[in-house]
Amino acid sequence: MDFQLHSRLQQDSIELGRFTLSRLLLINDHHYPWFVLVPQRKNITEIYQLTDTDQHLLQQESSLLAEKLARLYKADKMNIASIGNVVPQLHIHHIVRYKNDKAWPAPVWGKFDAVPYPEEQLIKTKKLIQKEFKETLIN
Amino acid sequence: MDFQLHSRLQQDSIELGRFTLSRLLLINDHHYPWFVLVPQRKNITEIYQLTDTDQHLLQQESSLLAEKLARLYKADKMNIASIGNVVPQLHIHHIVRYKNDKAWPAPVWGKFDAVPYPEEQLIKTKKLIQKEFKETLIN
Repeated sequence: MDFQLHSRLQQDSIELGRFTLSRLLLINDHHYPWFVLVPQRKNITEIYQLTDTDQHLLQQESSLLAEKLARLYKADKMNIASIGNVVPQLHIHHIVRYKNDKAWPAPVWGKFDAVPYPEEQLIKTKKLIQKEFKETLIN
Repeated sequence: MDFQLHSRLQQDSIELGRFTLSRLLLINDHHYPWFVLVPQRKNITEIYQLTDTDQHLLQQESSLLAEKLARLYKADKMNIASIGNVVPQLHIHHIVRYKNDKAWPAPVWGKFDAVPYPEEQLIKTKKLIQKEFKETLIN
């Protein structure tokens, strides 16, 4: 498979693992638990461009991710979005939101500059997620 | 079915029709062709709370809508999102974006106050959409 992650996603995130279809990334912004799914298919910018099988798979991976994150982080709300106005490669945001987070109730995009995680918290988050998804992540 | 549309969605939009699962709304904001799908299920705030069958149906309705809108409006990008920080009832935005629209490349939420459509353009849009989706909309 010669799928390549967009350079901007590479720069802004840490790869946590891979599901059957999508890579699971953590956005390196301490403000919110912010995850991204990137279907490993070339030249796709919109969900509807995926095959029916891949769309179904993406829906399953997205719901599994959202449900587990909501429980794990005790979310007040999950924000799920495919925007792609800046990075065209299809990627779906999954952001844990709290009524007392910095941007609430606004969406997070373009609100505040990212604050990178301290290194030890990055390692902790990586371990937590890899444990939580150990049955579905391919490493 | 005793599903009731949230009062805020009722206030901000015009109903264009109903798919098998979702109501199709047009947000009354002249800035962007902005549509919303609302699955007609009670007490649901997150996609993962829908049954697997409903999630699959929503994915199909969403992709059908996004693909047709992209072609019909010659979109540069579709923005698809389930946010719900203000209106908890599950609703999925489908927004046609252009590289020269007022908010580009930022997401549209919270950028500009809505500018209602002139009445005649509302009627025109309603007709256009109902024609485009005549095989899938239940009226």
